[in-house]
Amino acid sequence: MDKQQLHDCHNRIKPFIHNTPVLTSRLIDKISGAHLFFKCENFQRMGAFKMRGAANAIMQLTDKEKQNGVVTHSSGNFAQALSLSAQSLGVKAYIVMPSSAPNVKKEAVKGYGGMLIECEPNLKAREFASQQIVQKHGATFIHPSNDDQVILGQGTACKELLEAHPELDHVVTPVGGGGLIAGTALSALYYGKNCTTIGGEPMEVDDAFRSLKSGKIESNTTTNTIADGLKTQLGDRNFPIIQEHVEEIIRVEEEEIVSAMQIIWGRLKIVCEPSSAVALAAVLKAKEKFAGKKVGIIISGGNVDLGNLPF
Amino acid sequence: MDKQQLHDCHNRIKPFIHNTPVLTSRLIDKISGAHLFFKCENFQRMGAFKMRGAANAIMQLTDKEKQNGVVTHSSGNFAQALSLSAQSLGVKAYIVMPSSAPNVKKEAVKGYGGMLIECEPNLKAREFASQQIVQKHGATFIHPSNDDQVILGQGTACKELLEAHPELDHVVTPVGGGGLIAGTALSALYYGKNCTTIGGEPMEVDDAFRSLKSGKIESNTTTNTIADGLKTQLGDRNFPIIQEHVEEIIRVEEEEIVSAMQIIWGRLKIVCEPSSAVALAAVLKAKEKFAGKKVGIIISGGNVDLGNLPF
Repeated sequence: MDKQQLHDCHNRIKPFIHNTPVLTSRLIDKISGAHLFFKCENFQRMGAFKMRGAANAIMQLTDKEKQNGVVTHSSGNFAQALSLSAQSLGVKAYIVMPSSAPNVKKEAVKGYGGMLIECEPNLKAREFASQQIVQKHGATFIHPSNDDQVILGQGTACKELLEAHPELDHVVTPVGGGGLIAGTALSALYYGKNCTTIGGEPMEVDDAFRSLKSGKIESNTTTNTIADGLKTQLGDRNFPIIQEHVEEIIRVEEEEIVSAMQIIWGRLKIVCEPSSAVALAAVLKAKEKFAGKKVGIIISGGNVDLGNLPF
Repeated sequence: MDKQQLHDCHNRIKPFIHNTPVLTSRLIDKISGAHLFFKCENFQRMGAFKMRGAANAIMQLTDKEKQNGVVTHSSGNFAQALSLSAQSLGVKAYIVMPSSAPNVKKEAVKGYGGMLIECEPNLKAREFASQQIVQKHGATFIHPSNDDQVILGQGTACKELLEAHPELDHVVTPVGGGGLIAGTALSALYYGKNCTTIGGEPMEVDDAFRSLKSGKIESNTTTNTIADGLKTQLGDRNFPIIQEHVEEIIRVEEEEIVSAMQIIWGRLKIVCEPSSAVALAAVLKAKEKFAGKKVGIIISGGNVDLGNLPF
């Protein structure tokens, strides 16, 4: 994917997304020893960067495809993002979600106009249900992270960040399914001045770290992390980009994630998801690497259960 | 206090404060039936609007007075605001605080370079300790809310809000000691187009509501509210301004405050104090009054104990 594609993607989705604010904090700079620029995608529409990739993926469909709608399986932010993007674009969105998913997530999808299809809580059932909708309605399946158009869309957050702060030395993102970090790496490459992309990943689900080591896509046998957006594994579309353009993945412990989350909430005064805090946790873990550097941090989202906080 | 004074005050303090962002939310607009513009003073330096008044009050001192320092008694945001303003301006700040105040508040004052003086937890002891510092060091006492320069400073938040959104019909603020709402009323008068100022006040500490009824400053016999910044009473400097220029004070129940706080955290994705939520609670309580109107809401601060949330 080249610079022109990223440029076109950004122009295409601009009417449907916010150019989210960048926050700084003297106190967090003091704590980290670096100059940090927080790109606040928690303020994005529906509360997460996923809105960008979802909007772009739908907009790249043909008129015929748009008429038949889109389908995905997700119980996270992408379900809401695809629903809201589809609604904004006058397209039908079918969302396959395990029946065990929290009610609040089901309601959010419905609130954004998504058609909810419940299935048994396992991967096979989700894929089967999605496939049925593709066959029955001719809907286009859109993967939450392993899709070129989604990757491009997610990259526009870093593009905006670099347009506002062109001198960043590094950009750090959390790593889940790989769409955000792959898109970010492309933006850093095309719009940064020697700006490198670094990932933060929970030690408990360090599949991306291990994938970079082994050279093939690894998975997680357990997923005991508070960062519930980061349990997924990389895909064949984003992995090669990550291999080529991501400098390093820094792994962090659960208590480091909670501590970073407390710093963001307490000092930056914003509500972010545990997954978002993984990027700051990585910067605080590798202080010597980032000392004195200008570092962009993507705050990926703010959809969190306020009744179930880790502090 | 005239428009020129407010204008000069703003120019004076600009280097020491942030012009804080204004956030909007389609979802909260839907819930309220109005168009809401949240002026986010939780993003202000040290986390609250109090920074504005504190900076202005110190800057209006003579050089001789500045040399002798400033003193206040407060266990809230004004203690931190005076400490940080004084530090930024190279002035000594003495902060009298009851020994019973939470350690985190004492540490915050020290972190901003304030000289902490602990006293017995009653008003007499606080006033005595402050008076001693005035006598011993020649320091100038600065009241957290009942001081013309503080009132002008607090008014600059609404001035910035109206400069960004000149067409507001109403501005709503929480009412505590009266500095914020008095300053806001002056800004609405000088910079608004028929923009009226409205207060939100907890039913549990409705001294300002009763003061407007009776025509004299009333106090609270009990202070059982989660909005801990609003327990104080009006003063002789701000009360006349409030009498003349505040349209109405709307009282809200404790559960309405918590509910508004949840909406702000969950939908706006920002961390605010319970006191801040009182303004939105007032708008939601008087929906018919605000229906279809453009309403500014001052989010007064974001200093909250994350380990002790009401949800």
